[in-house]
Amino acid sequence: MFESAEQVHKIDKSTYKVEEAKLREALLDAQFDLAEAKSFAVLILLTGLDGAGKSEALAKLTEWFDPRHVHTEVFDQPSEAAAARPALWRFWVNLPAKGRIGIFLGSWYADAFVGRVIGSGDDAELESDLSKFNRFETMLAAENVLIIKLWLHLSRSDQKQRLAEIAKMPGGGRHIVEYRRIHRHYKRAMAMIHKGLRLTSTGVAPWVVVPSADREYRDLMIGQTILAAMRKRLDAAPVGKVAAAPVIVASMDRKTALDALDLDRRLERDVYKKELAQQQQRLAEFTDSKAFRKIALVATFEGNDAAGKGGSIRRVTQAMDPRRFKVHSVAAPSDDERAKPYLWRFWRLIPRRGNVAIFDRTWYGRVLVERIEGFCSEADWLRAYAEINDFEAQLTAAGIVVVKFWLATSKDEQLRRFQDREKTAYKRYKITDEDWRNRDKWDDYAVAVGDMIDRTSSEHAPWTLVESEDKLYGRVKILRTIADRVAAAL
Amino acid sequence: MFESAEQVHKIDKSTYKVEEAKLREALLDAQFDLAEAKSFAVLILLTGLDGAGKSEALAKLTEWFDPRHVHTEVFDQPSEAAAARPALWRFWVNLPAKGRIGIFLGSWYADAFVGRVIGSGDDAELESDLSKFNRFETMLAAENVLIIKLWLHLSRSDQKQRLAEIAKMPGGGRHIVEYRRIHRHYKRAMAMIHKGLRLTSTGVAPWVVVPSADREYRDLMIGQTILAAMRKRLDAAPVGKVAAAPVIVASMDRKTALDALDLDRRLERDVYKKELAQQQQRLAEFTDSKAFRKIALVATFEGNDAAGKGGSIRRVTQAMDPRRFKVHSVAAPSDDERAKPYLWRFWRLIPRRGNVAIFDRTWYGRVLVERIEGFCSEADWLRAYAEINDFEAQLTAAGIVVVKFWLATSKDEQLRRFQDREKTAYKRYKITDEDWRNRDKWDDYAVAVGDMIDRTSSEHAPWTLVESEDKLYGRVKILRTIADRVAAAL
Repeated sequence: MFESAEQVHKIDKSTYKVEEAKLREALLDAQFDLAEAKSFAVLILLTGLDGAGKSEALAKLTEWFDPRHVHTEVFDQPSEAAAARPALWRFWVNLPAKGRIGIFLGSWYADAFVGRVIGSGDDAELESDLSKFNRFETMLAAENVLIIKLWLHLSRSDQKQRLAEIAKMPGGGRHIVEYRRIHRHYKRAMAMIHKGLRLTSTGVAPWVVVPSADREYRDLMIGQTILAAMRKRLDAAPVGKVAAAPVIVASMDRKTALDALDLDRRLERDVYKKELAQQQQRLAEFTDSKAFRKIALVATFEGNDAAGKGGSIRRVTQAMDPRRFKVHSVAAPSDDERAKPYLWRFWRLIPRRGNVAIFDRTWYGRVLVERIEGFCSEADWLRAYAEINDFEAQLTAAGIVVVKFWLATSKDEQLRRFQDREKTAYKRYKITDEDWRNRDKWDDYAVAVGDMIDRTSSEHAPWTLVESEDKLYGRVKILRTIADRVAAAL
Repeated sequence: MFESAEQVHKIDKSTYKVEEAKLREALLDAQFDLAEAKSFAVLILLTGLDGAGKSEALAKLTEWFDPRHVHTEVFDQPSEAAAARPALWRFWVNLPAKGRIGIFLGSWYADAFVGRVIGSGDDAELESDLSKFNRFETMLAAENVLIIKLWLHLSRSDQKQRLAEIAKMPGGGRHIVEYRRIHRHYKRAMAMIHKGLRLTSTGVAPWVVVPSADREYRDLMIGQTILAAMRKRLDAAPVGKVAAAPVIVASMDRKTALDALDLDRRLERDVYKKELAQQQQRLAEFTDSKAFRKIALVATFEGNDAAGKGGSIRRVTQAMDPRRFKVHSVAAPSDDERAKPYLWRFWRLIPRRGNVAIFDRTWYGRVLVERIEGFCSEADWLRAYAEINDFEAQLTAAGIVVVKFWLATSKDEQLRRFQDREKTAYKRYKITDEDWRNRDKWDDYAVAVGDMIDRTSSEHAPWTLVESEDKLYGRVKILRTIADRVAAAL
């Protein structure tokens, strides 16, 4: 969930001023339209890490909106009246009415997470809580509440620095002891929160992670996310019709996990040869081992066109007994496949124990090409993140090692490879008009890939981003990653 | 879930013949329309207790349908190929295509239940499985699969008898040892299955419990349920539009849990006086106790008009310190209330610890008057069962005792009371045109009440049906039930 948010996101003051003025006017318009239409309520959950600036963001929002139709509520320790009632009571009684905006600082998530950071964490119990939250939010959505879930994120070092600032502020030290106590468990807390957000990021109420190190960036992103979600619903079909799904992306600088890649990484050919042979040898041993008969391997390849998927896959298969693996090239679904749920054709190809399936393009087509080309509705690809997470969780629960690669090159390098393919006779079949069309949508794909990585990287099936500007470097990284993951599972 | 199914449901052979002929033709029509429209797939889960006749029902369905567009699959022990893959794999690869019907004998539920009947049952783990099933089915529904979940039910004695018959059949003894082993745990199994079906009866894929003691009744009900669900979807909006929710009721004889009530129960006035005083005394003591400050009580009253809710509530409140309780009369929602999710106005009235809230009519209006009068859409009241179950689970998890009464009279007795009210000056305010209009819909209400009891009776918040033909008997039963439930919680 935090891959893109962990990049440096900054906005300069003068841009901020211009954008803020525009945003403010647009938010007031949206609020006015909402108050007049009274067709739905807006519920904004402003939640996230200590020190990320929930209160500051709340102050901004109350400044931007007309306060007459906004109800803000701070959920800290439960009041005595709340403590004497069921946990969700205090949220229920403060729900906004249709035509109005409710901003909750804190939420049912904060309650579930904070108690578990310190103290014993029962996984099954947390999952049970999370599925209650999903049911609660599904119900709210069905009852015409537009839920905008914002998680304010800070990296570990940013949080440390922010807490130091807070400690120096007059009166700021009030909660600082507790904040620091939690900060000490940053890594464990983030693992739990990561899982929590992933399991509760649904089609009807997806999470938006807000990078909060830069205050201006944070506030603008919050404002624009809210604006986009409200506008979309206001401009959609009339009341009672299919509710438009909330938007999930309002990242202004479009920076994602991909931007963190160092594409200058290279390998000399002689080093490459040695390392490749070494990793292939490891993979061969592991997949030949007796222990491998109890598990299985699914390795998936996605990436920019011409990033080198085919060549990488060949290096993987070279290492394995041909009776053991199958390579599946995924193209557009056939009519027969379209007649089934979209995951069906992948389920059919799941290997049995002791076997390996390699996918050249995958089920992620749903949130990449299908999203960008409009082959499925927004509601469809929005729910796909959770569905794919469930799918991969079932694979890994059955002992299948799932290794997912995104092969990344720069746009310039792609151009060079395209041109090379056109010049070389035996490579010409590899380049089509469609490749050029996809290239025109490079920026759209970058956003979709960022969302995909953020929303489907899980502890059991993480994404591995591969710097493929130098094919040799990329191939070795892929081989090593597969070998390491299989070794860990044996 | 099984309250209505446990009634005696029978159909005579000649009626069966007539109905079967009609049904068969209609099913073939529906199947033909489906094959032509190709807009959705039909997935029928034929699952339930051993001996209930899943195979017999499957045979009937394959006889009724044109076998060319039906795919049946029996899920018994996983094959070697299935055992080597994730648990859901064998269901996935057998999913029907759009335009076709898939009938599964057995299902993911059977896998989850059977293993847990014998052996250790971890509640949190079961819940986690069930919520996975819900997500799976929600995805299928979004992917245009109409899911019809049939649970074939037998009472304990009916199952025993059926197993004896099977044991005598040639070759029938093959599974009988295992069946009997499970039958020995009937009560524990049913508690688990009850919970399982309740938690997975969602708006998009509700369960239909099929009373299966009488073979003809069972088969007809299955056929009619499938027909109604298919017809509804086929006749609904065009492809891609809002998918109509599946129907849940196809009970032909409209017999529900209400039919089991013995309305002749009476109390002599002197016995009544003594018992009432006794129970009021108990309730007074319990609610005055120190231990009561840690819990709370919510008592809800629903029932036929003129069934005696008001008088019963007065007898309850007489027993309690007026500072401790509040009585809430629930009428049609105001405009302000309509602007919030429908449960909001009830959440507001949830008592704090140590207190009592009595509801004269309740949140069940959603599945009674709102359903029958069309004040909400079918999708709305269908999802309400699960939402209400969640709501009450949250109350009870917080230590609130939830006691729910349905006060039942005969239709004749209601008429007598209506006429009495019209004749008596000080009672005339109690009878309105609306009461007479409701009376005209007596049969519709009986079905809705039956569904409500089946779908919202839970271990933590069971329904108590009160024989209120004799008001004195009813009042004492109510007082005693409340006192017993509170005593158990102290």
